[in-house]
Amino acid sequence: MLLLRRCRRLTAGLSPAQAQRARPAGSPAPSWCGVGGGSRSSSGGGEDGQTAQDPRWRPALAGLLVGTGAVLAYGLHHHKAERPLAPMEPAPPVFSQAEVSKHGSLEAGVWVTFRGGVYDITEFVAMHPGGDKILLAAGGALEPFWALYAVHSQDHVLDILSEYKVGELDPEDQARQRAVEPSDPYSGDPQRHPVLRVNSAKPFNAEPPPELLGDSYITPSAIFFKRNHLPVPRVDPASYRLRVEGLPRPLSLSLADLKSRFPKHTVTATLQCAGNRRSEMNAVKQVKGLNWGIAAISNATWSGALLRDVLREGGWGPEAAGGGARHVQFEGLDADASGTTYGASIPLNKALSEEGDVLLAYQMNGEDLPADHGYPLRVVVPGTVGARNVKWLGKVIVSREESASHWQQNDYKGFSPGTDWDTVDFKSAPAIQELPVQSAITQPADGAVLERDADGEVTVRGYAWSGGGREVVRVDVSLDGGKTWQVARLREGEEQGEEQGEAPPPPPLPGRAWAWKLWEVVAPLPPGEQQVEIVCKAVDNSYNMQPDSVAPIWNLRGVLSNAWHRVRVTVRED
Amino acid sequence: MLLLRRCRRLTAGLSPAQAQRARPAGSPAPSWCGVGGGSRSSSGGGEDGQTAQDPRWRPALAGLLVGTGAVLAYGLHHHKAERPLAPMEPAPPVFSQAEVSKHGSLEAGVWVTFRGGVYDITEFVAMHPGGDKILLAAGGALEPFWALYAVHSQDHVLDILSEYKVGELDPEDQARQRAVEPSDPYSGDPQRHPVLRVNSAKPFNAEPPPELLGDSYITPSAIFFKRNHLPVPRVDPASYRLRVEGLPRPLSLSLADLKSRFPKHTVTATLQCAGNRRSEMNAVKQVKGLNWGIAAISNATWSGALLRDVLREGGWGPEAAGGGARHVQFEGLDADASGTTYGASIPLNKALSEEGDVLLAYQMNGEDLPADHGYPLRVVVPGTVGARNVKWLGKVIVSREESASHWQQNDYKGFSPGTDWDTVDFKSAPAIQELPVQSAITQPADGAVLERDADGEVTVRGYAWSGGGREVVRVDVSLDGGKTWQVARLREGEEQGEEQGEAPPPPPLPGRAWAWKLWEVVAPLPPGEQQVEIVCKAVDNSYNMQPDSVAPIWNLRGVLSNAWHRVRVTVRED
Repeated sequence: MLLLRRCRRLTAGLSPAQAQRARPAGSPAPSWCGVGGGSRSSSGGGEDGQTAQDPRWRPALAGLLVGTGAVLAYGLHHHKAERPLAPMEPAPPVFSQAEVSKHGSLEAGVWVTFRGGVYDITEFVAMHPGGDKILLAAGGALEPFWALYAVHSQDHVLDILSEYKVGELDPEDQARQRAVEPSDPYSGDPQRHPVLRVNSAKPFNAEPPPELLGDSYITPSAIFFKRNHLPVPRVDPASYRLRVEGLPRPLSLSLADLKSRFPKHTVTATLQCAGNRRSEMNAVKQVKGLNWGIAAISNATWSGALLRDVLREGGWGPEAAGGGARHVQFEGLDADASGTTYGASIPLNKALSEEGDVLLAYQMNGEDLPADHGYPLRVVVPGTVGARNVKWLGKVIVSREESASHWQQNDYKGFSPGTDWDTVDFKSAPAIQELPVQSAITQPADGAVLERDADGEVTVRGYAWSGGGREVVRVDVSLDGGKTWQVARLREGEEQGEEQGEAPPPPPLPGRAWAWKLWEVVAPLPPGEQQVEIVCKAVDNSYNMQPDSVAPIWNLRGVLSNAWHRVRVTVRED
Repeated sequence: MLLLRRCRRLTAGLSPAQAQRARPAGSPAPSWCGVGGGSRSSSGGGEDGQTAQDPRWRPALAGLLVGTGAVLAYGLHHHKAERPLAPMEPAPPVFSQAEVSKHGSLEAGVWVTFRGGVYDITEFVAMHPGGDKILLAAGGALEPFWALYAVHSQDHVLDILSEYKVGELDPEDQARQRAVEPSDPYSGDPQRHPVLRVNSAKPFNAEPPPELLGDSYITPSAIFFKRNHLPVPRVDPASYRLRVEGLPRPLSLSLADLKSRFPKHTVTATLQCAGNRRSEMNAVKQVKGLNWGIAAISNATWSGALLRDVLREGGWGPEAAGGGARHVQFEGLDADASGTTYGASIPLNKALSEEGDVLLAYQMNGEDLPADHGYPLRVVVPGTVGARNVKWLGKVIVSREESASHWQQNDYKGFSPGTDWDTVDFKSAPAIQELPVQSAITQPADGAVLERDADGEVTVRGYAWSGGGREVVRVDVSLDGGKTWQVARLREGEEQGEEQGEAPPPPPLPGRAWAWKLWEVVAPLPPGEQQVEIVCKAVDNSYNMQPDSVAPIWNLRGVLSNAWHRVRVTVRED
């Protein structure tokens, strides 16, 4: 390993652990051979595929670099990095910021600064897991970008960077840089409920405890799962304007416009992250992404203007249909250091359909949207993967093409279990829109210990939902690992609402079953068994069913995890 | 068994086989103790669940009695039939037709005649697998009904009938009855291609050999699977009228009206029977229905008027929407002896949607509809189960309610594997409309013997399709029973057409992928293996996948059989 050879002279006589202890964690690198953790890298990669040092693992990290990003050429890294050793020098060269700034393109070379070091990363650009977004930092400092994506703050990332060090930044320029360094971009994020299970703090991603989730048909906003890709933007509602483009009459709409010029439409819709239940895929084989449990799904009531009405206000009509527009793009106001915003798109026919119910929502569960859910305005695309329900909505664009954003093009797509990061072609798969049929057991919890009491029964509860407005029509539950099945009672109507003192939900219109169903089975525990595997599977009104097992639907991003849900419990005799 | 006791005096001294031989097959019963086959019944039912004598098997037969019918109370039969023996009489009483006719209701008793015998079936009505349709024959002859449903012509059905014999019909009335007895109602059925694999001759149900099916993107009409519920009606195109009801302006449209007053719309759409691949469910546990292989699915180009346009011509509009109509019913001109026609319905929103593409089709593959496919007019409901694509269309009714027909209410629905004929409640499940994602291997055939040649490769081909206009985006193929997977090449565009010299199909519009995709994999045979299990599974653009195995989706009617398709081949070394 190049780094090992470069740094050997510094760590000679120290064990790797000693070398590590010799330098305070997180402090600048003690020499120009690396920025930190170099000696740990020298221990080499194992073959277990799990350690940070394992080159095969690095793509898994890298997938997070742009929040959720893809790794296209990363496997090349170690091969290409084997360049000849730099000449031995007593001290690193010093460069001014002006010199660094000249290296701001692939043609002129790509230099960046980090913690006082100067790095020529030209060769690395093609290997950057987050794509050429890295060029945004060319000729300048990495810190603002890495502040956004906390995953960079790991030793092995610093290891990689260290290989490209070419010198030090002039101390005066270092001082100037520190003076303008941004504060933590996440410092404006709102307070969250402590009951949430946090998968990532920055950006904030968290899910509620399953037993809470399954208790209420309408998920309280505070525990509704949070899936942010970037810092929560602070938006001034008074000056806020939604821009609508790609129509005969471009629009700029204030919140008051949205509330007064269009009928208020209310929809109860379940949102689910594409990565819900990813942890079950991780159990088969490591994937990239946040390790969601079964609760990256929640159900709320949303109110706002119909996107369809707004598009028609902008002049959309049959005559405009000739223009070849096929998509509606959404841009969030959440942005990275370069100003690149979160973005996504949906098919235009979904947006225009009388039965699509796509909302520009300003209320969630009867109140202004909370900051984490897109205040002051978000898109709600019922039946469609969470990622298209863009929050902090800044712009709507009717267009011929899908959104060019990373999240539309190179993320949130499904692949065959045989596809790996060496062979994946993101262009070969469609962006996830409608999600497949899903269900999970929220009670009892996996690993629970149940007492077998007099009646010897167990209450099993859960949720079930399907994308595209397809109504869940049946949930089958097994108490013997899937050999025999009984039909769960769908906790519909009054019952779903009454626990919360809410009005019962109306029956869904055909093709517009946007909300989940909660279900319940009270069944005798298998006599004599101490280990019981409880399984559920749902059926929607297209009679699509969940696949039996995880391995055959495993995919490298760990999305679309909708195999039968299995919970193993121990039964203790009374 | 009652019959055994009644008939013992006649068969005494004969073995069951001798008793059978003593009477020519199909001849009238030799005594009033039974109408035929009585002695065979006396051998009693086995326990293998497969023989005709097995009482447990009878519901499986009975399911066919109305073409596809349900068995609700059939299990009661044997219990209730244990009534006291009739007194021994030297000769049966003789009844006139006038007397028989008086027993035409449950109140007056239900009598029927068959082959000169008179039967009091009052007690049996509640047990009739085909429901109270049996009352249509009350006071009259069974022959016209049984001629429609050839499944009645089996010894065990005659056994059941024999238990209810009360006497003989007056010989003069027998002669009169024979004079007016209808000819075979299927005598008007068209000639069919001999390559078809016939599952039922009357009504005609047949599928093409899979290897032929997989060879052409557009299935030639002659080998397109045939699924008839009743005799093919002969319709005079000159006097034909389509009646459209339930609208502000009822319509009566001639063929010329349909062709001239509405734009001609052409759609390439795959139709699939709900029972396609039922044989795989039978392999798990016996179900009711025709034993379809993998070819009860085909793809054709259909042309006609849009149902939407016709409904609008009848005055359908936003103002009519307030009337509460939710369904569009279709009535065929194919009828049973009582005049009851085939019927089905679809949701109104599918019929009205600009993107629904529901056709009143008068052409198939560029020619007039063939007789077996609904000449002169049928409904084509793209993305929806074959059963709703009503042929020989006589009437369209916009209504609040679904079709009341047997096939909408008590058939073509899916149930949990734990639901049996004792517990099934047909009201608890929605009528099948959109079908789930499906795929199958058309080449090689199951059980094929392959020669391992120099390149050691095998070509695997098949079809893939999903309901609701959801486009198939990927087919995974495994050559090791599902452990590892590779992605099949979808034979799209030019290639699909060129084999037939056809124009390539255009890419589907979003949400309107009505046609299947053919696919192919050329892959190395696993080295050294002599038994290879080839598996396929498809994914649609809602990322629904096929379930892994059959048992967990097994249902008592054997519909919706869409588990991974598996083909086992033997590889012979060269």
